[in-house]
Amino acid sequence: MVARTVTRKLIDEHLVSGEPIAGEEIALHIDQTLTQDATGTVVMQELEAIGLDRAQTDVSVQYVDHNLLQADERNAEDHEFLRSAARRYGLWFSKPGNGVSHPTHMQRFGVPGATMAGSDSHTCAAGSLGMLAIGVGGLEVALAIAGEPLYVRMPEVWGVRLDGRLPDWVSAKDVVLEMLRRHGVDGGFGRVIEYHGPGLAGLSAMDRHVIANMGAELGATTTVFPSDAAVADFLRSEDRQDAFREITADPGASYDVTDEIDLSELEPLIARPSSPGNVVPVRECAGEPVGQVVVGSSANPGLRDFAVVAAMVDGRQTCDSVSFDVNPSSRQIFEDMTRMGATFQLIAAGARIHQTGCLGCIGMGQAPAVGHNSLRTFPRNFPGRSGTAEDAVWLCSPETAAASALTGVITDPRDFARDNDLPYPAPQLPAEASVNTAMLVAPLPAEDAAEIELVKGSNISSLPDLSPLPDALDLPVLLAMGDNVSTDEISPAGARALPYRSNIPKLAEFTFTRIDENYPARAAEAGAHAVVAGKNYGQGSSREHAAITRRYLGLAIVIARSYARIHWQNLVNFGVLPLTFADPADHDRIQPGDVLHLADLHSTLATSKELTVTCGNNDRAFTVTHQLSPRQIDTILAGGRIPQLAEQQRSG
Amino acid sequence: MVARTVTRKLIDEHLVSGEPIAGEEIALHIDQTLTQDATGTVVMQELEAIGLDRAQTDVSVQYVDHNLLQADERNAEDHEFLRSAARRYGLWFSKPGNGVSHPTHMQRFGVPGATMAGSDSHTCAAGSLGMLAIGVGGLEVALAIAGEPLYVRMPEVWGVRLDGRLPDWVSAKDVVLEMLRRHGVDGGFGRVIEYHGPGLAGLSAMDRHVIANMGAELGATTTVFPSDAAVADFLRSEDRQDAFREITADPGASYDVTDEIDLSELEPLIARPSSPGNVVPVRECAGEPVGQVVVGSSANPGLRDFAVVAAMVDGRQTCDSVSFDVNPSSRQIFEDMTRMGATFQLIAAGARIHQTGCLGCIGMGQAPAVGHNSLRTFPRNFPGRSGTAEDAVWLCSPETAAASALTGVITDPRDFARDNDLPYPAPQLPAEASVNTAMLVAPLPAEDAAEIELVKGSNISSLPDLSPLPDALDLPVLLAMGDNVSTDEISPAGARALPYRSNIPKLAEFTFTRIDENYPARAAEAGAHAVVAGKNYGQGSSREHAAITRRYLGLAIVIARSYARIHWQNLVNFGVLPLTFADPADHDRIQPGDVLHLADLHSTLATSKELTVTCGNNDRAFTVTHQLSPRQIDTILAGGRIPQLAEQQRSG
Repeated sequence: MVARTVTRKLIDEHLVSGEPIAGEEIALHIDQTLTQDATGTVVMQELEAIGLDRAQTDVSVQYVDHNLLQADERNAEDHEFLRSAARRYGLWFSKPGNGVSHPTHMQRFGVPGATMAGSDSHTCAAGSLGMLAIGVGGLEVALAIAGEPLYVRMPEVWGVRLDGRLPDWVSAKDVVLEMLRRHGVDGGFGRVIEYHGPGLAGLSAMDRHVIANMGAELGATTTVFPSDAAVADFLRSEDRQDAFREITADPGASYDVTDEIDLSELEPLIARPSSPGNVVPVRECAGEPVGQVVVGSSANPGLRDFAVVAAMVDGRQTCDSVSFDVNPSSRQIFEDMTRMGATFQLIAAGARIHQTGCLGCIGMGQAPAVGHNSLRTFPRNFPGRSGTAEDAVWLCSPETAAASALTGVITDPRDFARDNDLPYPAPQLPAEASVNTAMLVAPLPAEDAAEIELVKGSNISSLPDLSPLPDALDLPVLLAMGDNVSTDEISPAGARALPYRSNIPKLAEFTFTRIDENYPARAAEAGAHAVVAGKNYGQGSSREHAAITRRYLGLAIVIARSYARIHWQNLVNFGVLPLTFADPADHDRIQPGDVLHLADLHSTLATSKELTVTCGNNDRAFTVTHQLSPRQIDTILAGGRIPQLAEQQRSG
Repeated sequence: MVARTVTRKLIDEHLVSGEPIAGEEIALHIDQTLTQDATGTVVMQELEAIGLDRAQTDVSVQYVDHNLLQADERNAEDHEFLRSAARRYGLWFSKPGNGVSHPTHMQRFGVPGATMAGSDSHTCAAGSLGMLAIGVGGLEVALAIAGEPLYVRMPEVWGVRLDGRLPDWVSAKDVVLEMLRRHGVDGGFGRVIEYHGPGLAGLSAMDRHVIANMGAELGATTTVFPSDAAVADFLRSEDRQDAFREITADPGASYDVTDEIDLSELEPLIARPSSPGNVVPVRECAGEPVGQVVVGSSANPGLRDFAVVAAMVDGRQTCDSVSFDVNPSSRQIFEDMTRMGATFQLIAAGARIHQTGCLGCIGMGQAPAVGHNSLRTFPRNFPGRSGTAEDAVWLCSPETAAASALTGVITDPRDFARDNDLPYPAPQLPAEASVNTAMLVAPLPAEDAAEIELVKGSNISSLPDLSPLPDALDLPVLLAMGDNVSTDEISPAGARALPYRSNIPKLAEFTFTRIDENYPARAAEAGAHAVVAGKNYGQGSSREHAAITRRYLGLAIVIARSYARIHWQNLVNFGVLPLTFADPADHDRIQPGDVLHLADLHSTLATSKELTVTCGNNDRAFTVTHQLSPRQIDTILAGGRIPQLAEQQRSG
């Protein structure tokens, strides 16, 4: 047998159908699922629509971590709905306050060798344990819970060899920032990033979580690390040593694409506003004033990350003009932080300690003032994601965050150490974590679960009905956008919109309002319509609301230069036809107000990868392509995957 | 000299003018002021309007504790505005995260014998240290900061003698709930409650804070405790022993009104939804299911309150179906909780630990689901104050809260103790508190302060212009309300409205919407108008927005059966004429839509306490009275205190 990568081993073990040839559609058996509250309410509505009786996976967990503000009753009612649905369908329920899904899942449920589908783009963080964990739209997760395989395009495997050891004051966040500095926010398209090499020996499983998590920012299908001694150590500390299984690449395994990083040559890096791809050395920005520093999120969730910050601020005071916010990432980590004294050190230094959860990372609170730089250990800084329209959010390591909180200006932690004669902290983490599962509510036995009724507050709607694709379309173009538009811009999160995640008609009123506040009204007037976009369209969060709300408003097709993977799949699932310019230059020739004609869609889609679009205003024609599999063409023709399933059930 | 009460000693020491005869207007010199963010932005706008150069008080502190959610940039920009104004005018600035104003002020600034005016109704909490601390509207505080005396009606002194000692499982909260059970939410009108007697020996200074704080719920002018050994102990633990001065009532001092409580006969009490006056024994409600328990707020802020809860939940798990929320009340208390292990115990038992501040107490987050009982150690449960329109909020002691969080139903802590063989916790509090003032930014030196510019974000408006009172009024009645309408119903707080506290035109859109969502539109259409109310009108929060926003919308007069003190004063300050039915039965004879005529106002107000109102629809006349002093009549005629001041400055 040929020498195989870790990625290939995981795929081979779970392959249900298809050929594992890069670019081909394959179907994978899914062992675990992860949903969170912002995307999960729709997943639960989908399970209801599908008529599921009980989850068919090994483990499915519904987390509540995104919206914990409870500004009015809608939020608490979403939590009750999710609790009831988890009980009804045989899922674990992680209570509000138990923690961010990714570190919590890693601590309590992660299993080397398992596959996972998650309705959160950072699901890939579980690759830290040698899992194949893929962030997808909610409907994909609903189907995985129902026992269906997950369809993905076989990715290329991008082998990134790590050598050397990180210098003092440089940590895992800087490794993934280096990847973003080199390759940008679309560098990982169609690829699994697989880290290997001797440099791994210096990275703990939680360090690898940091790197795997932000594979999402590179646009990768997922990130995979081997399951080795570091993973065994981690599982032992979590009292789950039985879950360990070694999975490493075979000697001589070859990768489709390769890269190398000498860890010893890295320095502290920072992503400038407002893209995770705007990475530069911290020293180049040193001295910029800072109004807020936030530590936490799935991008730096580990006990070590908080402990290093606590050690740096211990006995010092954070700068007068800085709001220093700390978001413990899980109840367990907060318990351990407190046990080892880090919580005390942070409070004494002026930290505002917040409840465990995502909070400011998803724009639920912690919005900075306009004109004030906010440094965050978070994964994303898309425009406005913080909740502030004209924000200036920077992404950095815990070390850079702590140094800057103390000085009040962006500070290279090596400079802070030199000026303050501070050795690099080596916090002693407890060999055994505080394992405490009381906020994880176990699935009910099947016989009891069948009795449970879903608890739907007044803000919880049903999903909209979706009609099949017509054979011909005449569509006005309502928006013509540039590159890298994120799902945060398509369907905003934040404190105003997020409470409506269970209410599609209401949430639709926020669609595209960060780009054009009149879009919802114009779409309602126009009915069926099109939008045009540049490269990497729909990057960022996995929220399928970015597809559902626009379909609800009449969006029929998108034509883009290229798509982010999850959003492209979400468009298909909800019956929006995602097309690509054959000649990228055609993008610039389309204006809002142009009317596009597409004819003979049913027969053309079935027989060709190319379609011709006529632009009514100037009678110009241009060519677009599609990347749909035959399975996906059926989905589009049916109007989306839910009507398709309904049709399949009716016909047999 | 006659034997004097503590209250009388404090008044005599600060009397600027007037006769200290109950009901007469007196003027008091003010030593200290307290403002918080929800009311303070307007106070700072008022200081700007007055043209203040520097605070004339001994100590003035601007706290930021009410709105810490930062759902968008407006919140952080309010914080920046307050910081800049504190620096400009010579105030202390307590940063977001430093804590709730009342316990923080008590710990760091409270001085026996001092007077304080605060733009927060719970300012009276400082009576725990033998201060005369009065919650008033923001403009009163602005004037006190400017060195003006505070005008109040000389209150009656209500001597409440305490005997005996509290039984196990009964604590200070139950003492003030017993006062509310006996006397209701208007029992303290026109009175200072002065506690005395041998029962005081068993109550620490922080226990007294609990009791003094909720004097606001009794409608009292303030609450006063003597400054005795318990106060000396407290100041010593805060490293401020020099501030101590003994102030006790003279032997034989007599009170205008008297009451007695035998502490040993009290039992756990609870206020049912939705008034602090609905007090019953906990045992009468035992077994009601609970969805949320929240511990914290100025009503139970002490380290002891958190430590007792931590000891009760230590080694146990709070009920699966309960969200158990803990809001540390100050950074210092959180630091001590953490140092002594209470934070660890709480986290391990399933608590969601929130940042220090008021949070859910002012409806900023923590809103419960409709139909779920929420038990809180808070001071207030007015309808909708939680952020949930149809809420069910109960007020109780930390002991009752913890027992109920553990069982998931309302539970008398004595029953819980019996069933679980639990002795009453006697937590060992540190003899010396963690004194840490780094989040308290000291006033700038005067020469530097003059250079500071106010930082006004785009949401920070100017105050509206106010015109003088016409001599005759024709006013449609837009609302006819019943008894006990609170300022929470007049001008809601909560996550939607509170961000507009610096923006009067926008905030006005929320006026009365809890009672009639069309009121703002109807008022805009009607222009000058009247409203009618029952007893205790304007109870609760001191927010002067409840007067400003309605004046902005055209409210010219209110006729009520009786008024809560602070709101009455706020109406006068903003030029709304507060009138009282001479015959309370006339209240029921007025309907919305009636038109009221008042003539010869200028001469009648100056010469008589009575006015005649003609009701246009039925040509019926009735008599109303006013309680305005000559000084206040001038204010009303000028259109409010700010135009009055401007006029005084113009005329030299």
